[in-house]
Amino acid sequence: MKIKNLLFIPICLTLQMINAQEHTSYVNPFVGTKNMGHTFPGATTPFGMVQLSPETNQEPYAIDGKYNPETYRYCSGYQYEDQTIFGFSHTHFSGVGHSDLGDFLVMPTVGKLNLEPGKANQPKSGFHSQFSKKTEKASPGYYEVMLDDYGIKAELTATERVGFHKYTFPKSSDSRIILDLMSNIYNYDAKNVWTFVRVEDDQTLVGYRETTGWARTRKVFFAMKFSKPFKSYGRKRYEKVDYNGFYRKFNENENFPEFAGRQIRAYFDFDTVENESILIKFALSSTSTAGAMKNLEAEIPGWDFTQIKKEASAKWEKELSKIEVETQNENDKKTFYTAMYHTMMSPVLYQDVDGKYLDIDQNIHEAKDFTNYTIFSLWDTYRALHPLYNIIQPKRNNDFIKSMLSHSQYSVHKALPIWSHYANENWCMIGYHAVSVLADAVAKNTTDADLNKMLQASITSSNLKYYDGIEDFLKYGYVPEDKSSSSVSKTLEYAYDDWCIAQIAKKSGDLNKEAEYLKRSENYKNVYNSKSGFMHPKLSDGTFKKEFDPMDTHGQGFIEGNAFNYGLYVPQNVPEMIKMMGGKNKFSKHLDEIFTTEIADKYIENNEDITRDGIIGNYVHGNEPGHHIPYLYNYTNDAWKTQERVRDIMQKMYSSEVDGLCGNDDAGQMSAWYIFSALGFYPVLPGSDEYQFGSPLVKAAKINLENGKTLNIKTENQSDQNVYVSKILVNGKEVKNHILKHADIANGGEIIFTMSSKH
Amino acid sequence: MKIKNLLFIPICLTLQMINAQEHTSYVNPFVGTKNMGHTFPGATTPFGMVQLSPETNQEPYAIDGKYNPETYRYCSGYQYEDQTIFGFSHTHFSGVGHSDLGDFLVMPTVGKLNLEPGKANQPKSGFHSQFSKKTEKASPGYYEVMLDDYGIKAELTATERVGFHKYTFPKSSDSRIILDLMSNIYNYDAKNVWTFVRVEDDQTLVGYRETTGWARTRKVFFAMKFSKPFKSYGRKRYEKVDYNGFYRKFNENENFPEFAGRQIRAYFDFDTVENESILIKFALSSTSTAGAMKNLEAEIPGWDFTQIKKEASAKWEKELSKIEVETQNENDKKTFYTAMYHTMMSPVLYQDVDGKYLDIDQNIHEAKDFTNYTIFSLWDTYRALHPLYNIIQPKRNNDFIKSMLSHSQYSVHKALPIWSHYANENWCMIGYHAVSVLADAVAKNTTDADLNKMLQASITSSNLKYYDGIEDFLKYGYVPEDKSSSSVSKTLEYAYDDWCIAQIAKKSGDLNKEAEYLKRSENYKNVYNSKSGFMHPKLSDGTFKKEFDPMDTHGQGFIEGNAFNYGLYVPQNVPEMIKMMGGKNKFSKHLDEIFTTEIADKYIENNEDITRDGIIGNYVHGNEPGHHIPYLYNYTNDAWKTQERVRDIMQKMYSSEVDGLCGNDDAGQMSAWYIFSALGFYPVLPGSDEYQFGSPLVKAAKINLENGKTLNIKTENQSDQNVYVSKILVNGKEVKNHILKHADIANGGEIIFTMSSKH
Repeated sequence: MKIKNLLFIPICLTLQMINAQEHTSYVNPFVGTKNMGHTFPGATTPFGMVQLSPETNQEPYAIDGKYNPETYRYCSGYQYEDQTIFGFSHTHFSGVGHSDLGDFLVMPTVGKLNLEPGKANQPKSGFHSQFSKKTEKASPGYYEVMLDDYGIKAELTATERVGFHKYTFPKSSDSRIILDLMSNIYNYDAKNVWTFVRVEDDQTLVGYRETTGWARTRKVFFAMKFSKPFKSYGRKRYEKVDYNGFYRKFNENENFPEFAGRQIRAYFDFDTVENESILIKFALSSTSTAGAMKNLEAEIPGWDFTQIKKEASAKWEKELSKIEVETQNENDKKTFYTAMYHTMMSPVLYQDVDGKYLDIDQNIHEAKDFTNYTIFSLWDTYRALHPLYNIIQPKRNNDFIKSMLSHSQYSVHKALPIWSHYANENWCMIGYHAVSVLADAVAKNTTDADLNKMLQASITSSNLKYYDGIEDFLKYGYVPEDKSSSSVSKTLEYAYDDWCIAQIAKKSGDLNKEAEYLKRSENYKNVYNSKSGFMHPKLSDGTFKKEFDPMDTHGQGFIEGNAFNYGLYVPQNVPEMIKMMGGKNKFSKHLDEIFTTEIADKYIENNEDITRDGIIGNYVHGNEPGHHIPYLYNYTNDAWKTQERVRDIMQKMYSSEVDGLCGNDDAGQMSAWYIFSALGFYPVLPGSDEYQFGSPLVKAAKINLENGKTLNIKTENQSDQNVYVSKILVNGKEVKNHILKHADIANGGEIIFTMSSKH
Repeated sequence: MKIKNLLFIPICLTLQMINAQEHTSYVNPFVGTKNMGHTFPGATTPFGMVQLSPETNQEPYAIDGKYNPETYRYCSGYQYEDQTIFGFSHTHFSGVGHSDLGDFLVMPTVGKLNLEPGKANQPKSGFHSQFSKKTEKASPGYYEVMLDDYGIKAELTATERVGFHKYTFPKSSDSRIILDLMSNIYNYDAKNVWTFVRVEDDQTLVGYRETTGWARTRKVFFAMKFSKPFKSYGRKRYEKVDYNGFYRKFNENENFPEFAGRQIRAYFDFDTVENESILIKFALSSTSTAGAMKNLEAEIPGWDFTQIKKEASAKWEKELSKIEVETQNENDKKTFYTAMYHTMMSPVLYQDVDGKYLDIDQNIHEAKDFTNYTIFSLWDTYRALHPLYNIIQPKRNNDFIKSMLSHSQYSVHKALPIWSHYANENWCMIGYHAVSVLADAVAKNTTDADLNKMLQASITSSNLKYYDGIEDFLKYGYVPEDKSSSSVSKTLEYAYDDWCIAQIAKKSGDLNKEAEYLKRSENYKNVYNSKSGFMHPKLSDGTFKKEFDPMDTHGQGFIEGNAFNYGLYVPQNVPEMIKMMGGKNKFSKHLDEIFTTEIADKYIENNEDITRDGIIGNYVHGNEPGHHIPYLYNYTNDAWKTQERVRDIMQKMYSSEVDGLCGNDDAGQMSAWYIFSALGFYPVLPGSDEYQFGSPLVKAAKINLENGKTLNIKTENQSDQNVYVSKILVNGKEVKNHILKHADIANGGEIIFTMSSKH
C-alpha cells in the first residue's frame, strides 16, 4: 500500500492500518512445525481458547499396549512434511512435551459417505484428503489449504472462543461435513469417556465430550452452527453398545436429533453449487452447551468471515506491536515476531463470555475480578515466559496469577498448579514453580492479587507431603535418590522455589516464614558432592550414589538433563554456588566444558525432550534446565562469554524456517528465551527484580508498555561480528555489573548497548 | 401413649403428636417387597430424592451378553426373602417395570479389608453381610437391620436430599465404611461411565458418578460427611487403566485425596469402641458437588439422628393424614395407608435447595416459580396417580406439570416426557400421556401453568413423527401393524391422548385445534374389526391381520395386554365404543368373559409384567391397561357388577402383607387405583372432570383438601357382604348416573353411600 492511497481511506484507519500489517507479516506460523517444535499452524487469537488447526495424522498413543513413540511428533497434531489432512480440530497445545486435546475434528468431504478417517499416506483410505504444500498458507489468525481429494478450499479463522470455518465446495449433491467426536491428539479414541450431542435445528448442534488422558477428567462443551441448513444428517456409534434401552424404537443413525455414547462420528449433508461456501461457527465452553451457545452468539453474531479474519489479525497486530524491533536482516525480524507469536499461544482463555468457568473441583465458578485462563506448563514457563509477560503482558499475567490462585482455592490439595490444563492437574514434571510466577510479579509489582493468599497457597504447595518427595525433602533437607527419582533436580528446584516463597513472605511482612524458606532455599548445598565436584544424587543414609556419570541424562538424579547442566541450577545464589564449586575460574571452565564437550548419543538416547538439533556440546538448549547457563558467565570474570554464547545460540538454535525451533517450544518458553536474549537481557532469577545483561541481537527495539511508557533499546555498532558489549547505558547511567533492575525499565526508559567485535 | 402422659409434653406437641403416630403406624414399607411389587423398604421422605434402602442382591443385567431375567426381581434392589445385604444405596425406583439407579452403595464392615461385594447366599464371600429377618424394621422414613457378619446395627433415615446413616459398631480397630461407586441396580458395573471423588478433609468427601443405562446420560453428584474423622482411607480402581499420566508419581490407592475412573470402590477406616456409632450424612444433587454440599448443610446441619428420623416420620404423617379413613378392619387400614405411602415415592424432588436443577438438555437451570421433580412413569401414572394428586396433592401436581413443561422446553424434541428420569428420556412404553396429566389438571382447575405452553408442548408431542409410529398414525389414521409393533395399543392410546389435547385446546379457546384433535381422538374406530368383534391389528394396506388370537398377549398388536382387555381402551368415548361393539348387553357379556375366562399360561408367558398373582380370569390387574375395565359395567345396564368387581379386586389383589401387591406398583399407579376404589370412585377418563362411582371399601373417609376444605365420605350399612351401592348422595343430592363431578368435591363436600347386599 502506497502512501498516496491513504487519501481514499478514512482518517482513523490511516497510519495505524499500515502498521497493522507490519508485524503480523513477519510471523510464520509454520516455524516449529517441522521436527520437534510441536507448534501448529492453525488459526487462533492471542491467548484464545480456540486454536483451530489441521490434524495431519492420527497416530495412536499405544500400539498393542506399548507406547508408540511416533505420537510424540504429533503433540500439536501436525507435522510440516505431511500431505494428508484428517480435518481441523479446535484445541491444541503449542510446543509441549506431552499432549492431549484435539477436540472436535471437522472435515468437509464430497462424494460417498465414508466415516473412517483412513491412514495417513494411504490416499483415499478414509475421509482424509491429500493436499499440496503450495496451497497451504498461514498467518496470525488465519489458515488455508486446498483439500485436493475433494476440490474443497478450507479456510479457518477464529475469535477467542469460536472457530470460524469456511469451506468452498465444488458443485455436488453429496457435499458433506464430518464431525468426528472420536478424534484426539494422543491416545486417539481410547481417551473418550462420553459424548453427548443434540441437533437443535437444521443449522445448529450443541454437545460435549468428556475425555480421560493427560487431563484425567476433562469436559469440553460446544455449539456448532452452519451457514445453511443441512438436508440430512446422521451419526455412527462405534463402541459396542451393551444396552440400548427403549432407544431401540428409533433409527438413531439417521436424522435423529440426539446422540450420546463413547465413540461417535456424525455427518451433515448438503447440496452445493460450484464454488459455494459453507461456513461453520464452532464455539467452545468449559461450563455447558448453553455457555458455548452464548459464546458463539456473542463473539460471531454474523457470517462475515473476512471481517472476523481481519479482526483476528488486528488482535495479533496489537499484541505483536508491543515490541517494535529493528533488526539487521529480515530473517531475524521474522524469527523475532514468530517467537513473539509463540509466546501468546498459551495460557489460553478459559471462561465463557459471562465469566463462568470450570475449576479443578469440577464446579462452575464465576470470575468476578479477573479473567480465567488455563494451560500452565510451569516447569517450562516460569523461567522466561512469565517474566516476559511482566514486561509486555502484566495485566494478563496478573490474570494468570489469579487463575492459579483460583486453582489452588478449589484444589483438594489447596495447591497451586504444577502443570494444569482444562480444570485438571496432570502433575507433569517437577517443582512447584507457580510460586516463582507469583514471586516474580510480586518483585516487579505487577500483581494486585492478595499477598496473604499468595503466600498461603505457596506454603501449602511446598508442603504437600505426598507430592514428589517433598516429605523427604523436608525430613532430610534433600530428596534422597533411593526414595524418589530425579532427586537432585527436585532438590535444586524445590530450593529455588523456596527462595521464591521467601520473597513473597518478605513482601507480606512474614519474617518468620521468610527465614524458614530462606533456610529451605539453601538445601541445594546438601546435594553438592565436593569430591565429584557435582550436584550428585544422595541416598537417605547420607552417602552419595556410587555409580555416577555426570554426563548421562538417565537415572543420575536429574530429569531431562545431566549433572553438568542441571547441576548448575541455583539461580537464587549463583555466587555462593560458584564459591562452593571452586570459584569463578573453575566455574567458567566448567561452563566452557559444557559448550565444548560433545555429548555421546548414549547419554541422551530415549530422551524425547533432548534432540541433537538443540545441543551445543552438551548444552541442551532444546530443553529448559539449562536456559540460564549461558548467562552464568556473567558471574565469573568472563561475561564476554555470555555475550558470545547467547549470540551464537540465537543464530544456531532459532530461525524463521519451519524447522526454526531446536526442540519443543515448551508453551512459549523457548521463544521467550529468544525475545529476552534478542533484546539483550535475561531473567536468570525469576522472583527477583533483576535481569542479567547478554548481547542484543536487535539493532533497536521500542517496547510499548501497558502503562503507556516506552522502553527504548538501542545499539551502537551492532553487527553479526560485534557480539560483545563494551558499554551499557541504562537511562544514561553506565552499568558495569551486568545487572538490569526491573525498576529501571518498568516506567519506560532507555538502554544503549555499545557493541564491539572484541571483548 | 396414654392421654394422661400428655400433661408432661409441651402444649404444641399434644394432640397433633398423638395423631402423628396414627397414620404412619399403619404403613408397612415391606408391602410389595416380596415377589414382583418392586417396592423397597428403605428410608425416604414423601417425594424425596434420597431413597436410602438396602441392596440384597447384585444380579448383573446380562450374563454372557444375554439378558438375565433374575435382575427383574431386583428392580428396587430388594427381595423380602433375601438374607444378605450388600449395603445401602441412595436412589431407587418404587414399583417400576424396568430399572436403573442404586447410586452410592455404603456398607459398614469390621475386620480385614475386603472390597469385593461377594455373592448373595454365599456367606463371607465378600463385604456383604448376612442378616436375620427378625432384626429388620421399617417405618416411613426409617429402616434398621442388624448386620450379623459384623455385629453392626444399621439405621437409616433421610431428608429430601440427604440420606442419614447410623452404624453402631462393636469395639474394633478395623471398623470400616465401604463406599462402592461401582454398584448399580440393573447392569451392575457395566453402566458406569465415569466417577470423580475428592476427599476434602478427614470427615468429608464429594464427587459424582455418571452412568449410562435406562437413562443414557446420567450424572449424580454427592457430598458425604462422617460424624468422626477416619484414620485412613483408600480406593481401588477396577477397570484396566490404559494411561495413568503423571499420576504414577503417587500411591493413589491410599490416602490420596482425589480419585477418578470408571470403576471405583473406596473405604474409610476407623477405630471404634464398643457400641460406638458412626453417622454419615450423604447428600445428592443433580447439579454439582457444590450443590450437594449446600444440600447437606441446609437439610442436616447437625448430627441428631433421632430428630431427623422424627422429622421424616412427621413429614409422612402430614401427607398420610390428608385422607383419614375408618375401615372395617385393621388390615384394610394398613393396606390403605401403605398404598398412600406408595403413591408418594415418585415423582421425586430434583433440584438443589437453591432451586438449581439439571434438565434434559444437560444444562443447569433455576426453578423460579415451581419446584422441579423427576421420575415420570407416565404410561402407568396418568391413569389414577395424577388424578389422585389432583385431589390430595394439587400443588405438587402443579409442580409436576411445570417440571414436565420444563422438560419439554429443554427437550431437543420439544416434547413432553414419555418416561423420564434424572434429566433423561428413556422412551419406555407407548403414548404421550403427559398430555393426559396436563388435561386432567386443566379440567380440574388445579394448575396455573400457562395454557398455551401446555397446548403447544402437547401438540409437539403428538406430532413427533419419528416416535413410535406417529408419522403413520397421522397418515393412515391408525398405526399399521406391519410398520410398528403394538400397533393397536398405540392407536388406542394416541386417540385417547389426542382427546386430552382437544380438552386443553378447548380450554385455551383454540377451537380449530380442538376440532382437529377431537377428530384424531376418533381414530380408535379405525382399528375396530366388526368381523372379529375386537380391536384388531390392521396393516398398512387397510386389511386386518389374518392370524389373530385376541387372548394372546404376544404379537397381536398390543403391549402388555391382549385384545380382550386392552382392546377396550376408549375412555374418551365409552358409550360410542359400546355401541360399536354391539351394544350394552353384548359389552357387559364381554366384560364378564374377561373376568371369568381363565387365560392359558402360553398367552402370558415371557411377559414379565403379567404375573399369575395379578390375574382374575384374563383380567390383568397387575398391569395398567385394564385398570378402568371393572368400572366399564357402569356404562352398561350392569353397574352392580362394577361394584362387585372392584370390591373383589381390592380384597384379592391387595393386602397389608409383604406380598400385598399383585404386580409392580408401577410408580404408585397400582396403589392409586386402590385408594380411589377404596373411597368409592375412580377416574376412568383422566382429562375430564368426572369420576365413575364404584363401591367404597372404607366405612368412612375424611379428605383434608389443600384448600382447607373437607370432603367427607360416609357409608351406611357397610360390610364385606354389602358390596352393592343402593344409593349415593353427593352433597345431599342423589346421583343415579354413577358419575361424580370433580366440582362437587373440589371445595369439600359429602358423599354418602348406602350399601346393600343386593343389587
